[in-house]
Amino acid sequence: MASVTATYLVHDPKGNFEKKAEGIALGLTVGSWTDLPDLQKEQLKNHKGSVAEIIELPEDARVNQYFGSPRKQALLKISYPAANFSPDLPAILTTVFGKLSLDGEVKLIDLEFSEDLSSEFPGPSFGIDGIRNQLGVYERPLLMSIFKAVIGRDMDYFKHQVREQALGGVDLVKDDEILFDNPRTPFEERIKTAKQVLAETEEETGHKTLYAVNLTGRTFELKDKAKRAAELGASALLLNVFAYGLDVLQSLAEDPEINLPIMAHPAVSGALTPSEFYGISNRLLLGKLLRLAGADLVLFPSPYGSVALRKEDAVGIAAELTEKHINWKGAFPVPSAGIHPGLTPLLLQDFGIDSIINAGGGVHGHPGGAVAGGKAFRDAIDGLLLNKSLEQISEESDPLKAALNLWGGLVKS
Amino acid sequence: MASVTATYLVHDPKGNFEKKAEGIALGLTVGSWTDLPDLQKEQLKNHKGSVAEIIELPEDARVNQYFGSPRKQALLKISYPAANFSPDLPAILTTVFGKLSLDGEVKLIDLEFSEDLSSEFPGPSFGIDGIRNQLGVYERPLLMSIFKAVIGRDMDYFKHQVREQALGGVDLVKDDEILFDNPRTPFEERIKTAKQVLAETEEETGHKTLYAVNLTGRTFELKDKAKRAAELGASALLLNVFAYGLDVLQSLAEDPEINLPIMAHPAVSGALTPSEFYGISNRLLLGKLLRLAGADLVLFPSPYGSVALRKEDAVGIAAELTEKHINWKGAFPVPSAGIHPGLTPLLLQDFGIDSIINAGGGVHGHPGGAVAGGKAFRDAIDGLLLNKSLEQISEESDPLKAALNLWGGLVKS
Ligand SMILES: [Mg+2]
Ligand SMILES: [Mg+2]
Repeated sequence: MASVTATYLVHDPKGNFEKKAEGIALGLTVGSWTDLPDLQKEQLKNHKGSVAEIIELPEDARVNQYFGSPRKQALLKISYPAANFSPDLPAILTTVFGKLSLDGEVKLIDLEFSEDLSSEFPGPSFGIDGIRNQLGVYERPLLMSIFKAVIGRDMDYFKHQVREQALGGVDLVKDDEILFDNPRTPFEERIKTAKQVLAETEEETGHKTLYAVNLTGRTFELKDKAKRAAELGASALLLNVFAYGLDVLQSLAEDPEINLPIMAHPAVSGALTPSEFYGISNRLLLGKLLRLAGADLVLFPSPYGSVALRKEDAVGIAAELTEKHINWKGAFPVPSAGIHPGLTPLLLQDFGIDSIINAGGGVHGHPGGAVAGGKAFRDAIDGLLLNKSLEQISEESDPLKAALNLWGGLVKS
Repeated sequence: MASVTATYLVHDPKGNFEKKAEGIALGLTVGSWTDLPDLQKEQLKNHKGSVAEIIELPEDARVNQYFGSPRKQALLKISYPAANFSPDLPAILTTVFGKLSLDGEVKLIDLEFSEDLSSEFPGPSFGIDGIRNQLGVYERPLLMSIFKAVIGRDMDYFKHQVREQALGGVDLVKDDEILFDNPRTPFEERIKTAKQVLAETEEETGHKTLYAVNLTGRTFELKDKAKRAAELGASALLLNVFAYGLDVLQSLAEDPEINLPIMAHPAVSGALTPSEFYGISNRLLLGKLLRLAGADLVLFPSPYGSVALRKEDAVGIAAELTEKHINWKGAFPVPSAGIHPGLTPLLLQDFGIDSIINAGGGVHGHPGGAVAGGKAFRDAIDGLLLNKSLEQISEESDPLKAALNLWGGLVKS
């Protein structure tokens, strides 16, 4: 039977978890059961939620102290028949974590979709392979950089930054997520300018660079803007999906007239994920749900910077995005924030070749400028894949040497 | 200068709040300032964020214990020029709480919109007065009830429940938020049936009852479905706004062809609000932002039930929804969950006449059935407004007496 199975982490003063789980399974589906007449049980049996598993966890003194009274902990797994909801994320989220999100200490950890239900969701349209095909780059992690401080600046500034980043050898440049449509650097101008500059740099260097434009504004105008972006030659769309809604991402991904890779930004997701007691796990929200809804690339906080995820969470997101799935292509993990060339070995070790190394300050802040900043990363990546150490590579790469001197790394200088 | 000013509650190990606040104000706007050439300062001065206020708060031993190290606390107020964002909620949320939501212990407490910026948002189309006009009821709180366990049931069951609830004298009936479009009780059938039944009951009793249908499905289909609902005679729309997005609510509210009051449901909002360290305050999210985006009625957990908000939060939401505003009509507060007739005096005291008393089990679970359940509430409300006590009223109202006997209340029986 098609279904979604939710895993919840609960902290409960009573800890009668069988009763609690049964209450959730019924309360969020048919309401009641044991007292129903047999005829009604027959009518409702395909709609009744059921408890799949209960895993009691040890109590945690630190948690008990915080609440001022003991909290029993458990993971509850509850299955909801797909007969109860339409196959869309708003219906599923409302079913599994609508009212329940308001009911005490409960965090949504995972959702398992039965295979037939998962086939209702598109997954990435391009995915890792599609983006590699666009770039013609297959054997290494991609390199991305972000515009620096474009707010309030003009098109000349934008144009200069596109060019510098591309000349440094980055594979993708993306708008800052806080750059909205504005008179100084309007949406359409950015796309046209980036297209022209990137055609020139490709002509000059033979290296292709994609530009992801920030798709912003009112929800019901996004599809038309996205189509316009495609017409004008944008190479990808950046979307602040958590400021809109997962279903908006899905609708953009499914629209055949849009036909651009979508890069999901984690902005606002920190309102949902960091509490140990409430909200939604990073792995589910930024990993499984973004992939299922159709993100081709997913940014999330790296485990290395000041804005950081726990390594377990960051690696868990990447696993959700890339592991084999019968219905969905893989999406590129883009661990972001605090990235400089000295971290390249760690990035390769933690996220592998099918990931994107993404830097803002780590490119623009290079002593030799953004061109040298990009080169430092590219040299580091290429050398590491030839099994050289950063130290060895830096002997032949001045940009990398300068980067390691500034930001540190796995080499003593 | 048009702007939005955000108030954040931060818990920080370092507690150098001037530096932290300045870092946020620059980092989320122009990026840097002191080292910029004067010419660039001139170009960027209308885009620079600024620190409006810093209020240091006392440390909390319980919090320090939880984190295992001291956390200084403060409220930071930071102003963002409207020149930096398009006047829509996704842009504003991404600006004020995009990347920042991911940056440690920071909770978004409030947003203050300058008057010119607030005029870009519609507020409720109908509001409290508009809904009162539809019902012709002005001098008392309204009474609402929710269908009970409709999942998996057929139209006969639905029809019977509409009728019973209306005969009990409720002013509004609403779908359960977990009832989606489905073959047994399809969206259009529910609307047509409710319209017919409610016309009959109004004919019989003279009392008018509105029906709020759950507007569900894919985001980009909601407008057409809402227009169809209006054509077929639904009286209001229920929306699981947090499963979609605030801007979706706003778009529905602004569409002149839809022209139905919108009832916002708090489903999924508990993923955002309950942590003391992270997320968004109830008062802002369920109060100010829902009103600004155009909700006419707002459900939120009452402070009385098992699924409860702190009284301060519930009353704060109601204040945001109803206080005078130069650009926005008031929206009806609907404190929900755990409501029975014995709580009517408390509801009146805490939420006043311009609120909606909303019950599910407190209507359907009445010993005399849903008709008596509605009457018990109506008798309680009418009597209290004549300055009678529940005890006095119950002497003349068997339904109220039975309700108080079952659920308790302010009277001994
Ligand atoms: Mg950014
Ligand atoms: Mg409900």
